[in-house]
Amino acid sequence: MGPRTGRLATPHGAVETPAFIPVGTKATVKGVRPETLREVGVEMVLANTYHLALRPGAETLRQLGGLHAVMGWDGPILTDSGGFQVFSLARLRQVTQDGVTFRNHIDGAEMTLTPETVVAVQNELGADIIMALDVCPPYPCPRPDVEEAVRLTIEWAARSRAAHGRADQALWGIIQGGVEKDLRERCAAELVAMDFPGYAIGGVSVGEGHDRLREVLGWTAPLLPADRPRYLMGVGEPRDVVAAVAVGVDLFDCVLPTRNGRNACAFTFEGMIRLRNEAFKTDRRPIEEDCDCPACRRFSRGVLRHLFAAGEMLGPILLSIHNLRFFMRFFGRMRQAIREGRFDAEVQALLDRYYKNG
Amino acid sequence: MGPRTGRLATPHGAVETPAFIPVGTKATVKGVRPETLREVGVEMVLANTYHLALRPGAETLRQLGGLHAVMGWDGPILTDSGGFQVFSLARLRQVTQDGVTFRNHIDGAEMTLTPETVVAVQNELGADIIMALDVCPPYPCPRPDVEEAVRLTIEWAARSRAAHGRADQALWGIIQGGVEKDLRERCAAELVAMDFPGYAIGGVSVGEGHDRLREVLGWTAPLLPADRPRYLMGVGEPRDVVAAVAVGVDLFDCVLPTRNGRNACAFTFEGMIRLRNEAFKTDRRPIEEDCDCPACRRFSRGVLRHLFAAGEMLGPILLSIHNLRFFMRFFGRMRQAIREGRFDAEVQALLDRYYKNG
Repeated sequence: MGPRTGRLATPHGAVETPAFIPVGTKATVKGVRPETLREVGVEMVLANTYHLALRPGAETLRQLGGLHAVMGWDGPILTDSGGFQVFSLARLRQVTQDGVTFRNHIDGAEMTLTPETVVAVQNELGADIIMALDVCPPYPCPRPDVEEAVRLTIEWAARSRAAHGRADQALWGIIQGGVEKDLRERCAAELVAMDFPGYAIGGVSVGEGHDRLREVLGWTAPLLPADRPRYLMGVGEPRDVVAAVAVGVDLFDCVLPTRNGRNACAFTFEGMIRLRNEAFKTDRRPIEEDCDCPACRRFSRGVLRHLFAAGEMLGPILLSIHNLRFFMRFFGRMRQAIREGRFDAEVQALLDRYYKNG
Repeated sequence: MGPRTGRLATPHGAVETPAFIPVGTKATVKGVRPETLREVGVEMVLANTYHLALRPGAETLRQLGGLHAVMGWDGPILTDSGGFQVFSLARLRQVTQDGVTFRNHIDGAEMTLTPETVVAVQNELGADIIMALDVCPPYPCPRPDVEEAVRLTIEWAARSRAAHGRADQALWGIIQGGVEKDLRERCAAELVAMDFPGYAIGGVSVGEGHDRLREVLGWTAPLLPADRPRYLMGVGEPRDVVAAVAVGVDLFDCVLPTRNGRNACAFTFEGMIRLRNEAFKTDRRPIEEDCDCPACRRFSRGVLRHLFAAGEMLGPILLSIHNLRFFMRFFGRMRQAIREGRFDAEVQALLDRYYKNG
């Protein structure tokens, strides 16, 4: 079981894998126009069901023509199940056999999500790939709670499958199980038996750290059928991505490029640089010399520093674009290295360079 | 003296006039990349000397390669003199024969601008057209204060001219005089005698209202030499623009398209619409049916409303782009109508439609 390349076909086009999927939480990749996503090489985007169900609501999105129309994006879209947000953002959560009731993080109104309502909402949104509602335990977490999360995740996966009604959307299952090997195995076995067209590894990147993440991936990825795409949710840190690609993970989504971009943190192959730093005040070099993104082609580090210091929108805009391009180039290099049979050497060199300053 | 078309040549290209110049206060037209400015038809941009002198400072801008490099804009640029900002934003102003001392609006530090320092800063920035430091009286204003403002504006214009050292930059004079006909005449006569390559009409759009603005334009424009460009500073309200073009004004700058865009107000030929309005919640029409801007080509009013409601950057970005395109189309129509000898009819129809709801 090693790294692999592939091509994920969807009704809105294909995606070369391993692929990075930028996050468009509220139906927009923050600060980046869809034309620009295409320009930097993005092939697929993600939107968050939880956020969209709250605002503007699934019915409004349907009346506006569905998620592709709302995002102005005619390529593949994936929506998550809302499980992660319910377990990280919402308050006063009550998980029952039926689903999860909580107060939302915006106005505190009570909401209930069940496997069936989550599928129904995603059917209205119309993404190409939709996810089953899962229970995402925190880290650390008492074993009995992880056991219960896995039990519900399995049951809800079956109910999601039964509720799914659109043949043009692929419903994928999510493997939970925290850092418990046998629970990951149980969850994977049960979901694989349900024959989903794709599988996500969820409940990671919640504080367990790189080594435990790697361990979880090492247990879980080999349990997933080789002919189905594997998706690691919420992971974007380069060392984590590389560890996952190494065991055959195909898809990744993460807010890092855009969130860091808004905070003046630039991804480069020499590591992260903080553009608010005084050191860049009169630096006429682009963020990264060999980068072909619209920010690097036209603006210097010193200009970006000025834009952030002056509180100008163009700073976050340009740096989000650059960081997305960085991820596209990073994934492009991995794909090429896999095809040429030199993945290990390529990523070792890449990580050594990226983390050389710690 | 009527409406006219023309072509303003600069070292960075030509501008078809009458032209609208978007404002890039701190060396960026807020939220809009330079490629997009070109795409919607912008030919020239403005930056504010006062703001740039404060942050990041003229020396830093020079080290970053000058204003064209910093803005990522290879077309014509105009910088203002800072006079307007000193008289509207700064505190504890003291105007002397020499210049103006004040506390800036950011950190309250004391600064002095003189005609010579303002020219020196603009020489460092490197815009194609630069402006002489003027004294911009408020409205209303006691006549003796307007007299003093005109006296200093004339003296400072002469000193600016003497201080200007770059042959590749055109230094223009600014006519002040408030709403006093004889003072406008005196200022115009003195500045025209100095033979500037272009003239601005300043000190308007400071609260005097449309009728007085029109009156001031009617007195002032005919006093300016027909072979020199005429620039009305800070004016963008369509009825004001039309009144100025009607008496032969060639250039306009204004923050309205971008400021209103950030506030969810969309310019259309049917008047302004406020996209936060609940009425647009499920409106699948573009902002304006026949608009060819990137926002109208790809997004609906309902989507824009969602973006603003959700506090997403893409709302201000898209609407700033649309509003700039509106101004480009508005000016394009005026130029075409002038060329075809039907300016009066065209703008009457245009204004009737634009202001039909008041």
